[in-house]
Amino acid sequence: MSELKGACIIGQSGGPSAVINASAYGAIKTALDNPSVTRVLGALHGIKGVLDDDLIDMGKEDPEELALMKYTPSSALGSCRYKLADPDEDDTDYKRILEIFKKYDVRYFFYNGGNDSMDTCNKISKYMLKQGYECRVMGIPKTIDNDLYGTDHCPGFPSAAKYIATSCMEVYRDARVYDTGMVTIIECMGRHAGWLTAAAALASYKGNGPDLIYLPETDFDMDKFIASVQKIYNEQKKCIVAVSEGVHDSEGTFITEYANKNAAKDNFGHTQLGGLAAFLAAKVKEATGAKVRGIELSLLQRCAAHCASQTDIDESYAAGEAAVLNAVAGITDKMVGYERVTGPDGKYAMKIKLFDLADVANTEKKVPLDWINETGDGLNEKFIEYALPLIQGETKLTHEDGLPRFVNLKMVKA
Amino acid sequence: MSELKGACIIGQSGGPSAVINASAYGAIKTALDNPSVTRVLGALHGIKGVLDDDLIDMGKEDPEELALMKYTPSSALGSCRYKLADPDEDDTDYKRILEIFKKYDVRYFFYNGGNDSMDTCNKISKYMLKQGYECRVMGIPKTIDNDLYGTDHCPGFPSAAKYIATSCMEVYRDARVYDTGMVTIIECMGRHAGWLTAAAALASYKGNGPDLIYLPETDFDMDKFIASVQKIYNEQKKCIVAVSEGVHDSEGTFITEYANKNAAKDNFGHTQLGGLAAFLAAKVKEATGAKVRGIELSLLQRCAAHCASQTDIDESYAAGEAAVLNAVAGITDKMVGYERVTGPDGKYAMKIKLFDLADVANTEKKVPLDWINETGDGLNEKFIEYALPLIQGETKLTHEDGLPRFVNLKMVKA
Repeated sequence: MSELKGACIIGQSGGPSAVINASAYGAIKTALDNPSVTRVLGALHGIKGVLDDDLIDMGKEDPEELALMKYTPSSALGSCRYKLADPDEDDTDYKRILEIFKKYDVRYFFYNGGNDSMDTCNKISKYMLKQGYECRVMGIPKTIDNDLYGTDHCPGFPSAAKYIATSCMEVYRDARVYDTGMVTIIECMGRHAGWLTAAAALASYKGNGPDLIYLPETDFDMDKFIASVQKIYNEQKKCIVAVSEGVHDSEGTFITEYANKNAAKDNFGHTQLGGLAAFLAAKVKEATGAKVRGIELSLLQRCAAHCASQTDIDESYAAGEAAVLNAVAGITDKMVGYERVTGPDGKYAMKIKLFDLADVANTEKKVPLDWINETGDGLNEKFIEYALPLIQGETKLTHEDGLPRFVNLKMVKA
Repeated sequence: MSELKGACIIGQSGGPSAVINASAYGAIKTALDNPSVTRVLGALHGIKGVLDDDLIDMGKEDPEELALMKYTPSSALGSCRYKLADPDEDDTDYKRILEIFKKYDVRYFFYNGGNDSMDTCNKISKYMLKQGYECRVMGIPKTIDNDLYGTDHCPGFPSAAKYIATSCMEVYRDARVYDTGMVTIIECMGRHAGWLTAAAALASYKGNGPDLIYLPETDFDMDKFIASVQKIYNEQKKCIVAVSEGVHDSEGTFITEYANKNAAKDNFGHTQLGGLAAFLAAKVKEATGAKVRGIELSLLQRCAAHCASQTDIDESYAAGEAAVLNAVAGITDKMVGYERVTGPDGKYAMKIKLFDLADVANTEKKVPLDWINETGDGLNEKFIEYALPLIQGETKLTHEDGLPRFVNLKMVKA
């Protein structure tokens, strides 16, 4: 494969995470250091930054400041939820993207995001191939939801899992402090895949976690739920529940829809969920008379950089780095992912593996049903074995005045 | 003052914090090491443990395991919200307490809690004095609310403040990631004093915090609030608000009462608050059409040991230690508190100071009005100067398998 010289664009898309910037930094730093990449451009707000010619020159950033991206949560370049049309129906956006690519002689395009972002990445890759414009396109995965096809796990999930397990352990201590009864319901993100909620099982494994855990992989039965809570409450005067925002009944209706019949939908047609913890808490109170508390982990679970897994940070950086190195070496049309291997010490290790973008786009990976217990309200040791290695290591985040020191980019327009 | 030999009881009461166990451990460790204290007993669930003769022998715990108390959130001995009657009206409980004190030859009583706990402590102290039973009684403060009289600040507040400021900085990054508009409302604890919500100003001071901060020290005007949000939203497409659960209108009615007219009351007659963030978010959505998100920090803010201030942990330990050393030296009927002094390096330092229990009991200290800005929606530099030294230092919490290693007591009955 001959050397391809040209500029690169990196963009971030979809819901942010505690480590999506670690991936972006891995790509930016590697690209800045690579002689084949003539210029490193950041697209502000993902693909919209390309469409709007809203690009910044990453080479103009102070290298020491830029390095803080590795420990800064959320998407430093901004994100979007913009859905590209099918190019056979409407190629307006694609023509514009090609125009911008030509304007800056862009020969490398790196897109950092989840399912929908890999779909965007795939469409752009296929369009450029069809147009005969040589541009190597690589997807860099990101999603706390952990639901991307192929890869062993997704950058962002381990840090969110560590935060959820840690918070569950702390809430467990707090919620059991009085001698009076209390039922606590903790709501985690996860629309169709229960990985994040499953992370609460790591706290239970440590003896300080929820008694009951409900994922969207199985149907949620309100009567069975109330009966299970009542049983534990009667025995212990306490019951802690972790529940996914996406739990649904046997007909597929989200339980939150019963709470909020006018739930808004986003640009991808996803129902905006939330308020489930309060709704279930009210149901439990009504049925049992117990004192209840609903806790929604909300945005906190996806941006808690102060509680990130250093394993996740390092792997996320490696994913961004691998995207650039592979592209420069001639690879295109792939998503970087992880393969779980056994390290030289006999313990968990991660190896970079590439996946076809077409396979990844819009495929969701769920928690295997045989990792869920027989009563459908907990996880078994298979999940613990899977998740525990991922949350190892405390973040090396720098502090200033006792608070996190996050990156501040100059954002010099290209 | 002659030496007083005998057993001690330590109990914990009221809402827990990330560092109340650091104080309890400071007292327990110091008492175990002191020859005047013949036996160290822990009262389970505070004063109820004394009334029920439900005491554990702290000397039977493994010293290394016991030392983990310093970094374990919530009350390891359990808590209660039991209110003692006025002894002139009903002295049943006091007679029982005296009976238990005599049974175990208790000559030292340490009570670890907030306003209501200092009231309990004061009543017991005065009763024992009146009965001529020699028992030295010391209050060890604790409250994330930071509202205890006299002391510069309360153990627990700095850690909660650090968590709130850190979380606000992270949410700030997350909530501004899209190019579409969004209003985010973060609800903090604090019924009558706004210290916790004020801590969000530390994030704003770092340039990554709320635009508007509302405390219960001033009246909350819904129309003015909506107008302020609208103005910032129009300018920036984003607006982040931190609000205390205890905000009220000019007639003193809690804003949450409008959301939940049947709010339950606890044993002290306090209204149980919550759900304000969701209520205000709905109000903002109705008035502005903006996309909104309400985040309630709930229990997370008081139990987040993983984000505790090491300054707070060390000071909390020192408070427990000082209670025992002063009692053994002959002091009684006091609460241990902090005085802010200038250290040899010209920087913040803390000195232990004792306060009369009678002065402390049931007095609330609020945020000074001249620390709040003129528009009543933010804090000025006086608050920053006050709070910043308190949140310094990251916790030395031990991790095991990537998760916090909290204490597990054997709890051997006395």
